[in-house]
Amino acid sequence: MKIQDAVKKLNELEAKKIAYGHAIAMLHFDGSTIAPPNSFEGRSKTISFLAGEVYKNFINKKTDELLNFLLDNKDKLDKITLVKTKENREEYDRTSKIPIGEYMEYMKLQNKANFIWEKAKKENDYSSFQPYLTKIISMNKKFANYRNPEKPAYDVMLGDYEKGYTMEDYDLFFKTLKERLIPLIREAVPRAQSIKDDFLYKDFPIYKQKLLIEKIVDFLKLDRDSFIIAQSEHPFTMGINKKDVRFTNHYYENNFTSAFFSALHEGGHALYELNTGDDLIYTSLGTGTSLGMHESQSRFYENIVGRSREFINHFYPLIKQMFPQQFSDVTKDVFYMAINKPQNTLIRIEADELTYSLHIIIRYEIEKLLFAGDVKSNDIPGLWNKKYKEYLGITPPDNTRGVLQDVHWSQGMLGYFPTYALGSAVASQLAVAMAKNFDYKADIASGDLTKVNKWLNDKVHKHGALLKPKEVIQYACGEAFNANYYCDYLINKYSE
Amino acid sequence: MKIQDAVKKLNELEAKKIAYGHAIAMLHFDGSTIAPPNSFEGRSKTISFLAGEVYKNFINKKTDELLNFLLDNKDKLDKITLVKTKENREEYDRTSKIPIGEYMEYMKLQNKANFIWEKAKKENDYSSFQPYLTKIISMNKKFANYRNPEKPAYDVMLGDYEKGYTMEDYDLFFKTLKERLIPLIREAVPRAQSIKDDFLYKDFPIYKQKLLIEKIVDFLKLDRDSFIIAQSEHPFTMGINKKDVRFTNHYYENNFTSAFFSALHEGGHALYELNTGDDLIYTSLGTGTSLGMHESQSRFYENIVGRSREFINHFYPLIKQMFPQQFSDVTKDVFYMAINKPQNTLIRIEADELTYSLHIIIRYEIEKLLFAGDVKSNDIPGLWNKKYKEYLGITPPDNTRGVLQDVHWSQGMLGYFPTYALGSAVASQLAVAMAKNFDYKADIASGDLTKVNKWLNDKVHKHGALLKPKEVIQYACGEAFNANYYCDYLINKYSE
Repeated sequence: MKIQDAVKKLNELEAKKIAYGHAIAMLHFDGSTIAPPNSFEGRSKTISFLAGEVYKNFINKKTDELLNFLLDNKDKLDKITLVKTKENREEYDRTSKIPIGEYMEYMKLQNKANFIWEKAKKENDYSSFQPYLTKIISMNKKFANYRNPEKPAYDVMLGDYEKGYTMEDYDLFFKTLKERLIPLIREAVPRAQSIKDDFLYKDFPIYKQKLLIEKIVDFLKLDRDSFIIAQSEHPFTMGINKKDVRFTNHYYENNFTSAFFSALHEGGHALYELNTGDDLIYTSLGTGTSLGMHESQSRFYENIVGRSREFINHFYPLIKQMFPQQFSDVTKDVFYMAINKPQNTLIRIEADELTYSLHIIIRYEIEKLLFAGDVKSNDIPGLWNKKYKEYLGITPPDNTRGVLQDVHWSQGMLGYFPTYALGSAVASQLAVAMAKNFDYKADIASGDLTKVNKWLNDKVHKHGALLKPKEVIQYACGEAFNANYYCDYLINKYSE
Repeated sequence: MKIQDAVKKLNELEAKKIAYGHAIAMLHFDGSTIAPPNSFEGRSKTISFLAGEVYKNFINKKTDELLNFLLDNKDKLDKITLVKTKENREEYDRTSKIPIGEYMEYMKLQNKANFIWEKAKKENDYSSFQPYLTKIISMNKKFANYRNPEKPAYDVMLGDYEKGYTMEDYDLFFKTLKERLIPLIREAVPRAQSIKDDFLYKDFPIYKQKLLIEKIVDFLKLDRDSFIIAQSEHPFTMGINKKDVRFTNHYYENNFTSAFFSALHEGGHALYELNTGDDLIYTSLGTGTSLGMHESQSRFYENIVGRSREFINHFYPLIKQMFPQQFSDVTKDVFYMAINKPQNTLIRIEADELTYSLHIIIRYEIEKLLFAGDVKSNDIPGLWNKKYKEYLGITPPDNTRGVLQDVHWSQGMLGYFPTYALGSAVASQLAVAMAKNFDYKADIASGDLTKVNKWLNDKVHKHGALLKPKEVIQYACGEAFNANYYCDYLINKYSE
């Protein structure tokens, strides 16, 4: 085989995977946004079939040999092809150890469980979701074991969501956070109780919230020719390719902050996908490199930008103009204090920056126990509530606002949550590096994100998945990941 | 091979085709509703790839042999399997004569042309669309010739959209319509000029129009667990399966009738798809049997129901309640006259019942000329305008309201338009048959469509594609298609 023929074959293989992936993504997107409830059965059949086709097209002797041939000739490959080859080799090894029948069964389960979860959350009915969760956990354990019987199953899972990270890494990371942040939380939360924030929970007509979100789209400079917003139970971002990016939002009539900060958050994810390099489009590398790095972008725009004094000073007049009655007595300083009020709350995605990592630590600790076999899925609600009491001093009044709040487990995403905390920490480190280059706070204050976007584009976005997470951090910050930037940032902000 | 193994194989083949069809349909749906403009390239790649996979999975020696084996044993097949086999045999023969490369090129072209058309329509720019149309026509001619070199290409096309119908049939059908209707139109249109209808073109806020459309959904008894509404440039209905049906609408601020009657029209299509038999779900037969029969359902609900005195008497109070200012001086009789005012207008989908078929005849005559090679695609706008002048006495002021108004040609649907007139005629014949069973007008007057839906369900919907168009008419009406019912209905209505 000639090298150029092998490269052509690799590209064809990727094009196939991308086409199937596109179709599956659209079916999921439809199912999460507008599809009628009864459609789940047919969609589940179709997704399962397509996933099977991907498997058949990808997992076979030909692919195996092709990838080995390319790796044997790696000196002759350009950088993009080499990284694609390595990624495909890893994915092949990861997937090929799972029998196709079980893989397809799992795809079906995932789709169904997601539908059941949505209903269960709505109806505060954990028991209807529990058998699906049990099955999801046991199948993931089995798959992790097929793939690497030497390693603890949870480590295999953690590595899927953030390459190279294990329980040892996260235990250490969370130990640092607990040591440096819990004392601050214990002190800041009671002190903050007197901060007024009731005005955030008045009546905010949804059509007006949507108009405000359009202003955020403008502020972030999301390209409307390649980007749309939809609605779903739980906000998420989907990047089909850099010319087709969507985020969803969920609007609550009596909550200003939920949709507002979700938009800034998902907007950060969307920018990452929209700004991946032109040379990577329609390849497996034309997307964010990892969940943690993705979260560093969403957290950057949600927190470093969106919850800063500079942003509020700039943006609050517009908010007030749109909701004059709701905010009639509220100055921008009062508004700033309210949206940064540290509180022991129930819902992760609405948590303030300071207590956010406690929500992650709770989920991480439960997942660890589940994978160690030390707890069963019917004990999760009790355990969940116990940990919320322990870490945050509050007990969820129902499972809708407790264990059922997040979509992740229903989609089999176990080991995913820790990347959220990691991403928040990386965002702080990026901000410190950016500040060495230019006064980004001044740009936020003036409402012009051109330079901020450009810096992140150069340092992070445009590389897509060509650079691995640790390489991106090294490239952007000139040093390795360091959790203390995050602690410094929070201690500095909340000691104010 | 055992019969039961062959049947199993046929069912697997259908399941595959349905899964691919579902994915392709969702990509089209997304593209027509919310997808960002720049997404077309990636979507076009994916659709083209998936269409190629369908071709590869379906057009091969194995399928050919399987279908022949089943047909050799047709006495041993149940009715559903027999019809499926015959349908697949026909589809195989239809598709296998087109080389895969050209087929895939055409799929790509179709997707792109649709996107270009949307833009061209918006910008009144026929010239940007024209090269795509030229290519679409020439490829369709070539395909028709591959498939049946003996037959005129346009006859092949006509047969695709309504089995067994040729230019000879339609020439005769349209001759009847012209003979019986044109004299009435020449007389009724000038007479109707004094009918007041300016109140239909006041300001109708879109969110209120949408609320009214929800009332139509209730009135039609569309099952919201299996049905949703979306928005697109041109209204259409998509039935993925009977548990996943969607229609789209297009709202105009200054036009009451457009979205209102589109909803009744698409609602008829949706009922057909929603009520196909449970035994046919997830098979190729679980859908309406033909375009003409589909149109008979949409026209039944749009015209026989929606433009009747009984419906207006029942529904108008609700309309007036929702738009009190716009209709302050308008009685239900004045409203009825206005929505039935025969007029020489430019837009087919907004035409009244009486002049509607002239719009179809114009398109039919142009298509005939195009296929005969007597006219080139750059001459179409001129020809279009000439024929509008001739038949309707008016000239479109721009191509947006002329040749670019319909989506069909951009999707290669040449030979499709005549089925609209056919469907309208069948709707009238069904109404006469229904009236022999029960007083359906009384049910419309009382606002309860239970019996109307049930009758159409029993006679038409539940059979899906198990009965062929002519069989359905025979079964429902106890006689063959007869265009005179349509003429009688219109003459009776407009002589009033």
